[in-house]
Amino acid sequence: MSYIPLLPGPHPGPAAERRDAARNRERLLTAARELIAECGVEALTMDGLAERAGVGKGTVFRRFGSRTGLMMTLLSDSEAAFQAGFMFGAPPLGPGATALERLVAFGAARIAYVLEHGDLVRAAESTDQDRHEVPAALLSQRHVELLLRAGGMDADPGLMAMALTATLDPERLLHAVRIRGVAPERLTATWRELVTRVIGRP
Amino acid sequence: MSYIPLLPGPHPGPAAERRDAARNRERLLTAARELIAECGVEALTMDGLAERAGVGKGTVFRRFGSRTGLMMTLLSDSEAAFQAGFMFGAPPLGPGATALERLVAFGAARIAYVLEHGDLVRAAESTDQDRHEVPAALLSQRHVELLLRAGGMDADPGLMAMALTATLDPERLLHAVRIRGVAPERLTATWRELVTRVIGRP
Repeated sequence: MSYIPLLPGPHPGPAAERRDAARNRERLLTAARELIAECGVEALTMDGLAERAGVGKGTVFRRFGSRTGLMMTLLSDSEAAFQAGFMFGAPPLGPGATALERLVAFGAARIAYVLEHGDLVRAAESTDQDRHEVPAALLSQRHVELLLRAGGMDADPGLMAMALTATLDPERLLHAVRIRGVAPERLTATWRELVTRVIGRP
Repeated sequence: MSYIPLLPGPHPGPAAERRDAARNRERLLTAARELIAECGVEALTMDGLAERAGVGKGTVFRRFGSRTGLMMTLLSDSEAAFQAGFMFGAPPLGPGATALERLVAFGAARIAYVLEHGDLVRAAESTDQDRHEVPAALLSQRHVELLLRAGGMDADPGLMAMALTATLDPERLLHAVRIRGVAPERLTATWRELVTRVIGRP
């Protein structure tokens, strides 16, 4: 999507175009955030966004590809912060704690993240069959797999990581809290219990 | 939906109507199964079904309520057999085996069931937010909870059951087998490993 000049040209156009595109993108994202704040994620449509931002619908689709693409762009800053936290952050989420401590912290952070960003996470993942293949989901699964291996879990750690991350499915977590009234601390405690039992008590 | 006469009446109408309704229902279900066999579940629409069965679209909606309702009706015989298996069937799935043996058998049976009925299960569950509240899902979760309690798991067994059944999510299982090429036996083995570690090795 981004414009990468291959050779410096005499024409001043590309840089100006790039600035325009960046401004347009920010305007669209701001409009989207306003609409979500006012009416919730469910009510956000590509049409509504185009109207709010005063651009054509085609522009919105060219920019984000799809409604899911828009959601992922909206989330990308917070998702990047979340990923940085478990990859490079301070322990126990980041390196420097035991595998079990890091697993426990990972689930707690993920649950807090899903409950904070709620419907946005769900909307960004709702490409049905493909949602298991989005880079963020694969990265989380791979992270859990590496921690399982580090914790001495040698029975098919890849599939076990897939199973464990399924218990952190945003839709399931949101359903538990919103429809069944489960306290978030109970979700965190159940995750801790689950991974502690899987890796084996110290 | 079914017609229950409160008092025996002199009018022969209701019985004949009931027979007609039952015939219509069977004709619709047969047509639906044919369409699925020919084109797959995804291609089955209420319009297409009405046309195939030679009835109005309104009849199809009155009979099944929605596309999801139609899927659940199509599944109900096999779902009933699956439920009977874990509630009243022979051990290790049914009563008579240890809690751990029954849990292991439950997951294996569920994985086999999902892989056999594939898209039909997914379509029947795809009412988004409500899919966690369909009776079949609640029954499975309750069953797992009771086995966890019987197996001595006392830390929030209700939420632990919710987490464990999330790992048997049809969409996840189908994705693993179809897109990632995971052998079904590995899914069953991972479930066995998971519940064995959760309940504690014997």
